[in-house]
Amino acid sequence: MQTLGRGTIRFNKPPRIEAYASVVGKKEGEGPLGECFDKIEPDEYVGESNWEKAESRLQNEAITLCLQKGSVSSQEVDAATGGDLLNQCVATSFAVRDMNIPFLGVFGACSTMAEGLIAASALLDGGYGSHIIASAGSHFCSAEKQFRTPLEYGSQRPPSAQWTVTGAGAVLLGFNGKIGVSAATIGAIVDKGITDANHMGSAMAPAFADTIENHFKNIAAGPQDYDAIFSGDLGVIGKELTRELLRQNGICLENNYHDCGEMMFDREKQDVHAGGSGCGCAASVLCSYVLPRLDSGEWKRVLFAATGALLSPTTVLQGESIPCIAHAVELVHMD
Amino acid sequence: MQTLGRGTIRFNKPPRIEAYASVVGKKEGEGPLGECFDKIEPDEYVGESNWEKAESRLQNEAITLCLQKGSVSSQEVDAATGGDLLNQCVATSFAVRDMNIPFLGVFGACSTMAEGLIAASALLDGGYGSHIIASAGSHFCSAEKQFRTPLEYGSQRPPSAQWTVTGAGAVLLGFNGKIGVSAATIGAIVDKGITDANHMGSAMAPAFADTIENHFKNIAAGPQDYDAIFSGDLGVIGKELTRELLRQNGICLENNYHDCGEMMFDREKQDVHAGGSGCGCAASVLCSYVLPRLDSGEWKRVLFAATGALLSPTTVLQGESIPCIAHAVELVHMD
Repeated sequence: MQTLGRGTIRFNKPPRIEAYASVVGKKEGEGPLGECFDKIEPDEYVGESNWEKAESRLQNEAITLCLQKGSVSSQEVDAATGGDLLNQCVATSFAVRDMNIPFLGVFGACSTMAEGLIAASALLDGGYGSHIIASAGSHFCSAEKQFRTPLEYGSQRPPSAQWTVTGAGAVLLGFNGKIGVSAATIGAIVDKGITDANHMGSAMAPAFADTIENHFKNIAAGPQDYDAIFSGDLGVIGKELTRELLRQNGICLENNYHDCGEMMFDREKQDVHAGGSGCGCAASVLCSYVLPRLDSGEWKRVLFAATGALLSPTTVLQGESIPCIAHAVELVHMD
Repeated sequence: MQTLGRGTIRFNKPPRIEAYASVVGKKEGEGPLGECFDKIEPDEYVGESNWEKAESRLQNEAITLCLQKGSVSSQEVDAATGGDLLNQCVATSFAVRDMNIPFLGVFGACSTMAEGLIAASALLDGGYGSHIIASAGSHFCSAEKQFRTPLEYGSQRPPSAQWTVTGAGAVLLGFNGKIGVSAATIGAIVDKGITDANHMGSAMAPAFADTIENHFKNIAAGPQDYDAIFSGDLGVIGKELTRELLRQNGICLENNYHDCGEMMFDREKQDVHAGGSGCGCAASVLCSYVLPRLDSGEWKRVLFAATGALLSPTTVLQGESIPCIAHAVELVHMD
């Protein structure tokens, strides 16, 4: 690989995406992307005894299914990168604990899928291994319990709140297949002083704009050079803010710009306020809607930039503002 | 880089450690390594209003000092890898949020320093960037509050318990200097069924043994080939278990084997039971005691293998056993 500019990597022999899989919950399965997912779990416990284990199970299923689709055994995988939003990232650690795969835990909040893809691609392109799996996931119930109020409390949510996606995505990287990871930009933390944890889209929008602008500059490209550009989970409010922020700097995002959080649910029918969120949002949309279109050649070049809010419930209670980050991964169809 | 065997990387043009810094608390400063640290903070709040911010400040100070010692500005750093034990890794995110450095959050519990070094070395060796900083830290008070009982409660600790180190370490990697990162082994999760969160050393020992054995096999070396071998924070119980486990497989760790958790405190005088622990333990011992001896050439080849227990308070209460991991980094003096 080579440095195209601060933060931006060009992969000289682009690692390929050999397989991908997505597993989501019932509500996500009833949304606009319902038919795209590999598996829909009707039970919010996914057969487990608590929500944390359920979240872990979702990610385990996504990884297992991804390996099956790629016809690669866990023993043939040289490393796994993955993460989630639970305290101490336990959903991921428990998801992979019986797989005996060299494991690198990553934490980028809802940007985790992009961060894991970058780490995995850097290892492969640099010369380590022949197969690396990257995964991320989240669960509505475990997230509400940990970050907000007990579900039984029935707390009312402000219109700017987002709905944590119950779902997981996994990507198997190697050197075969038609989708290449051609470049990536590692984001820096941006904190514009938002302190309202129910306004995540507004908090994350400046980080997304910063990373995208840096990526375009370093790679000498613009929005028009992509068939599609995805943000992770800015939701409808963050998406509009992002457009406005980039417009001020002369970058116009047109109809090829989409947000995974907005796409996940039908806002009119599903009562999710500003849209979906969570590590599993960008991960499952990537692995269900985005990658098949690159695989088929319908799209030739896509920018996937997942966003993360690096707060904790403690920092919110302490009145701290929300540090945010976005990592961008450029994916291309390769003949 | 190249793959020497599953999990093990050889760095072809070993990234160099250009600078390193350690900042610790009062108790650590009074321990056997007191004179080795760059800075000792007498106030447990480090001038902040709460322990979480104090932990963040320690890591911020270690990074800042490391950059000063390396005569590199934060704008010349191409990426930072880092992590900690706080929920959602906020100590690290807040430590770097104003630095405008492309940031990759990593989570490996107390193995974080080794994981971050591996990620940073892989990026540099693969061709990305010219300077990357890796850091990790922990704080006794924030860890007790989050993982155990309120400090005010004055809970009695069993003899197998360890004492979370208040401290942080930071390493600046680049292509100058006399210490090279020659190889590394990414560990897989090992869980032997220990459920007692006051027996971390016992839980982590099998993971350390597994990674070390794999590293020796892949790199065709043994304990006698190193001037020193360090585990992260197994403490006195885990250290002896590790010796026993490896002995069963024909590997004898002699007097060149040390544990950072055992080294940090004077067990007779400082009442820390089985020894030190926390992300900041291995990180601060590496940056105070280990690296200077490699720098001077007193040691030619060292294996640094930090260990992590990937549990959360929730998984402990749910009766789950403790998944553990260890990552090994091989460091060499280069003339």
